Amino acid sequence: MIVTMSETATAEEIDRVVEQIQQHDYQPHINRDAERTVIGIVSRDKPEEGTLESLRSAPGVKEIVPVKHPFMLVSRQIKQTRTVVDVGGVRIGGEYLVVMAGPCSVESREQLLETAHAVKSAGASMLRGGAYKPRTSPYDFQGLGIEALKLLKEAREETGLPIVTEVMSTEDVDVVAEYADMLQVGARNMQNFALLRRLATVSRPVLLKRGPSATIKEWLLAAEYLLAGGNPNVVLCERGIKTFETETRNTLDLAAVARACELTHLPVIVDPSHATGRRSLVPAASRAAAAVGADGLIIEVHPRPDKALSDGAQSLDLEGFAELMCDLGEPLWRKVRGPVNMRAPHASRSYPPLPREHVEVGDLP
Amino acid sequence: MIVTMSETATAEEIDRVVEQIQQHDYQPHINRDAERTVIGIVSRDKPEEGTLESLRSAPGVKEIVPVKHPFMLVSRQIKQTRTVVDVGGVRIGGEYLVVMAGPCSVESREQLLETAHAVKSAGASMLRGGAYKPRTSPYDFQGLGIEALKLLKEAREETGLPIVTEVMSTEDVDVVAEYADMLQVGARNMQNFALLRRLATVSRPVLLKRGPSATIKEWLLAAEYLLAGGNPNVVLCERGIKTFETETRNTLDLAAVARACELTHLPVIVDPSHATGRRSLVPAASRAAAAVGADGLIIEVHPRPDKALSDGAQSLDLEGFAELMCDLGEPLWRKVRGPVNMRAPHASRSYPPLPREHVEVGDLP
Amino acid sequence: MIVTMSETATAEEIDRVVEQIQQHDYQPHINRDAERTVIGIVSRDKPEEGTLESLRSAPGVKEIVPVKHPFMLVSRQIKQTRTVVDVGGVRIGGEYLVVMAGPCSVESREQLLETAHAVKSAGASMLRGGAYKPRTSPYDFQGLGIEALKLLKEAREETGLPIVTEVMSTEDVDVVAEYADMLQVGARNMQNFALLRRLATVSRPVLLKRGPSATIKEWLLAAEYLLAGGNPNVVLCERGIKTFETETRNTLDLAAVARACELTHLPVIVDPSHATGRRSLVPAASRAAAAVGADGLIIEVHPRPDKALSDGAQSLDLEGFAELMCDLGEPLWRKVRGPVNMRAPHASRSYPPLPREHVEVGDLP
Amino acid sequence: MIVTMSETATAEEIDRVVEQIQQHDYQPHINRDAERTVIGIVSRDKPEEGTLESLRSAPGVKEIVPVKHPFMLVSRQIKQTRTVVDVGGVRIGGEYLVVMAGPCSVESREQLLETAHAVKSAGASMLRGGAYKPRTSPYDFQGLGIEALKLLKEAREETGLPIVTEVMSTEDVDVVAEYADMLQVGARNMQNFALLRRLATVSRPVLLKRGPSATIKEWLLAAEYLLAGGNPNVVLCERGIKTFETETRNTLDLAAVARACELTHLPVIVDPSHATGRRSLVPAASRAAAAVGADGLIIEVHPRPDKALSDGAQSLDLEGFAELMCDLGEPLWRKVRGPVNMRAPHASRSYPPLPREHVEVGDLP
Repeated sequence: MIVTMSETATAEEIDRVVEQIQQHDYQPHINRDAERTVIGIVSRDKPEEGTLESLRSAPGVKEIVPVKHPFMLVSRQIKQTRTVVDVGGVRIGGEYLVVMAGPCSVESREQLLETAHAVKSAGASMLRGGAYKPRTSPYDFQGLGIEALKLLKEAREETGLPIVTEVMSTEDVDVVAEYADMLQVGARNMQNFALLRRLATVSRPVLLKRGPSATIKEWLLAAEYLLAGGNPNVVLCERGIKTFETETRNTLDLAAVARACELTHLPVIVDPSHATGRRSLVPAASRAAAAVGADGLIIEVHPRPDKALSDGAQSLDLEGFAELMCDLGEPLWRKVRGPVNMRAPHASRSYPPLPREHVEVGDLP
Repeated sequence: MIVTMSETATAEEIDRVVEQIQQHDYQPHINRDAERTVIGIVSRDKPEEGTLESLRSAPGVKEIVPVKHPFMLVSRQIKQTRTVVDVGGVRIGGEYLVVMAGPCSVESREQLLETAHAVKSAGASMLRGGAYKPRTSPYDFQGLGIEALKLLKEAREETGLPIVTEVMSTEDVDVVAEYADMLQVGARNMQNFALLRRLATVSRPVLLKRGPSATIKEWLLAAEYLLAGGNPNVVLCERGIKTFETETRNTLDLAAVARACELTHLPVIVDPSHATGRRSLVPAASRAAAAVGADGLIIEVHPRPDKALSDGAQSLDLEGFAELMCDLGEPLWRKVRGPVNMRAPHASRSYPPLPREHVEVGDLP
Repeated sequence: MIVTMSETATAEEIDRVVEQIQQHDYQPHINRDAERTVIGIVSRDKPEEGTLESLRSAPGVKEIVPVKHPFMLVSRQIKQTRTVVDVGGVRIGGEYLVVMAGPCSVESREQLLETAHAVKSAGASMLRGGAYKPRTSPYDFQGLGIEALKLLKEAREETGLPIVTEVMSTEDVDVVAEYADMLQVGARNMQNFALLRRLATVSRPVLLKRGPSATIKEWLLAAEYLLAGGNPNVVLCERGIKTFETETRNTLDLAAVARACELTHLPVIVDPSHATGRRSLVPAASRAAAAVGADGLIIEVHPRPDKALSDGAQSLDLEGFAELMCDLGEPLWRKVRGPVNMRAPHASRSYPPLPREHVEVGDLP
Repeated sequence: MIVTMSETATAEEIDRVVEQIQQHDYQPHINRDAERTVIGIVSRDKPEEGTLESLRSAPGVKEIVPVKHPFMLVSRQIKQTRTVVDVGGVRIGGEYLVVMAGPCSVESREQLLETAHAVKSAGASMLRGGAYKPRTSPYDFQGLGIEALKLLKEAREETGLPIVTEVMSTEDVDVVAEYADMLQVGARNMQNFALLRRLATVSRPVLLKRGPSATIKEWLLAAEYLLAGGNPNVVLCERGIKTFETETRNTLDLAAVARACELTHLPVIVDPSHATGRRSLVPAASRAAAAVGADGLIIEVHPRPDKALSDGAQSLDLEGFAELMCDLGEPLWRKVRGPVNMRAPHASRSYPPLPREHVEVGDLP
């Protein structure tokens, strides 16, 4: 259930409602924005309406409504302004398209630094790079581990770009959180609930990739694990789903990005590299992602893709990335994205326009 | 095999090569553009290289190469300039995004004419409307048949918009061809080979929808049936594929549009209505389709979607369509599409830029 | 809606109910079995309960219930005894597993007759063989057409095996019906509604293959087209669906066979050849199909699979087929199938046991 | 590469080959059976044939062949006899079908013990029961954890049935290994490589479920992680894959079981409960799994499925399970399974019959 307080509710009235919820052994999740306070009530036993009936007449309460979806904290029902996730000063979900770029795997100091400088000068806002690599075969390159983390840190110091890198195991969470600015949950780990529960307690933003066979609802429920566990700074990432089509590595599901934006206040970005698996399709997929309303892109770039230890076929080279960034010029960055989130003529009937001015960085208590 | 004639080959030299091919009981497909003549050799028994070895040294022959893909006539190997399909003066595959709009089913004179006038004034170039409807259940509305065709003709006379409508059976081909400007093959009929063979002999352009579980290659091979049978005026249409995701009606596969554009010279359009199944997602999907390089859109519009006899949930109302058309303004129509087909920085390495100046309407003999 | 007459209803009472339904312009579908008469009421406008309210108190009427599924005539709601389809004396859906076998394509008189004699002596009940072949590529072997039909007829005369062969187009229905005992609708044509409507009027049984991306409900609705149009003799055939798995040609969905048997009274058979695409998997898939309760199998057999013009990789040779038939011995043919349809302990709670004694060959009026 | 020693090779000759491999910094995996010794050579850098060329002429070496598949240790290329995994005396992969049964989640002492006694007396060989539950929603019942493990231990002491239960996290491996006889990797964790690496070092057998969108090759590569890391006692479990079909919870892929048996020496079992999601389909799916050659079944059973905290709709009640076990009588357990693994007429051409007499429990060094 979701309790909406009236605009004029006092802090005391809100506190009293929270207490009452806690007295029934339910967990209140408070969400304040410029206009109102909303309190989500979470319980594994689904509170019977009777139990909290008295809340309906409590001072300051405007209305109590049931939760529409199987998820709550990630939904636009509990928070109508879009969340902006701040990663080392980069605002994901804000007015501009955020581009994260870098190699699939960190392979060497030279490879990483060359790439980092190049993507920065082309306009990227964040650096990506794999230290711990999930590989289908145990005989493939598994990443440089902590050595890679140190190189990523060095690259941040040189370029100022915040770092996003994957964490594959609860045991690595602390060390990765020490070096990286944002922790990525890979597609295969989207429903690694032990990992999600651990990341919910970390003070770093999380990039949550959609599983290759996850429905939009399963994806949002995975994010709900993070928010319910205490971490409000979550960015979703569509990276293609598994279908019968073999011409592309996965099937990029851009309508899912638009649909996710209707259902959740969290930012959503797109990984055109894994989605297509083909370098030549990355620019078109990136443009389309921007046009559909994605808040950002995460793109694989390598100085010499043909020598890459992983994912060479889908990596842009430095020049190709620079051309792509030109392509995604101002018209796309602002005008095209505008309509989706700010005007969205039709969507606006069921999902009212989002006041971007007042958005705040992930603001659960 | 594909024979490329040198730029200086004379008409006589070309004729002699064609004769030689025919003497071996193979079928030559000649493709001429501004710069060169290419002759595709089709045979069910795959001509052994030896058989035509003598061609290699024939006067005017530049090179002979094997066919790269299971399809040939639709491929960019045989025709490097993009095909523009002319439908009653509307050029699909040309410089501008072509928007076809109208009701899922023609339901009445009033409904159709009201819609036709509205989509025209909003900027649509063609009118769509179903006369014969493929319905999953025999108990659902099956379309008005010939009565609908007559109304479509009237709508064309009133608005000047060329008509596209579905033909479901070889038996209906003649009557539909009499009234409509372009014949649509529905997704479920993409591999109705009897229908394809019949449409190959018709003097109308064909809109070929991708089957809900067709790979890109199967889709192009279905188009190959049309070209091999004699009809060069084919437009492909991506309309979503079937996957595990149930939040959208189908999964819109925009990377397939970009990939198809790499593989074929035929125009490719997108149906965001069937792909998403949700009215609220149609604008974002349309923008993304334009950005990925689609040559057009086919969109369901109904004056009163809640009363529609079919597909109401995915139909825009008249106002919604007008807003969408504003959204798809000049920047998208030209600048965004430009790069895909004309600059396409990376793609250009493997697939050279297409000289749009010199494109000709479907030009097989 | 479905009207169940009481066991003691007289013919006159039944007639009067039918008349009343017709007076309201609805179409009654009468189903009589040993115990009772059931009348399905079909209407495109879904009769409002009020309209037929008076029927509730008509003499002989036991109860009126709404239709549970989008389909009606194929459902077990309207006919609780299993349908047995008789094809030239072979009873599909009866007590024994029916095995249809033969080449993918009829290639020559020798090939066909050699195969026909071999599969007969191994125990097959029917001969399959393609005359008109749906091929993904226009350049592949498309079948011998009417010449193949004549050879199939000759094979029947020599061996006594009834013939099943595919019909791809409304235009070929008459000629195929003249030569074959059972007409097959291929997977790609499952929703070729023009073809279904035409086959509904033919006096031959129809084998309806499941489309590669058809849900069970869509499959049953395709069968509903045939029954609603007047042909009660329909056999369903599972042949694998399209998924991401590439190790097998399709994904054999045997749980769909068991589920279909819960939902429909029509017989269901399995095509292990197309489902797996690998000769070595056909025996195991056949045993599993028998164990899951399938009423029959349709298997590709070729004297020299490595020389086959189509589907060689999935065809058994003559010896392999004979071994498979040994494998599917009496225990499987009777004991294993028994439980599914006659005892089915758990299923029996929701779906009562079917009295096989009283089944009649397709018995809609 | 794979080195096959001749039948007469001496222990010394084998040792010398092993040494030579190690001198090149490659890792040898030795596999001995009654007839011969095979040595697999693992390396991330794929040893160039030249490097080990000298091995070809080493005393005792019969032949050196390249690895056919991306996996090696799980393949039948390196071990031709089927592996039997012993779990507390129960031999999975041996002559009999092994049935594991029990509740989805351990909910209480009474529920577990009642179920354990009932499934034992019905003929089950092992007890399943979830202590740590992977749940799509954070608000669903997450399992009783260690309390459940203690109850499982008590159930084993009372019934003698070995225990299989899921482990979701590296952190829980030790405690689960202390209480359970076999550790299950859930479908969502199939590519949780950190978990796989940890389980590779444990002295308990592992039950590895196929991921809902994992290809057969990805599944076998996940098992390869376990064998490469040192744990040879791995049982594979097919539990349905994700497709567009919604009538069943997942799509049971039985042909994948038959195909996996061709590719690997590891035992393969089937979970008909998760695969179908419907109680009424479990008996038919179980029979089919046995017929296709599965080595076992894992089935959800609950005393009162309608009160179950998870997966009630797919759980059999105690009586239903007993009926199913009757159904899967001796004819199925032996005769039907026989052909698949021991006779398999056709398969036997490419994959020779497996001498079951001499199989040994997981026998990598």
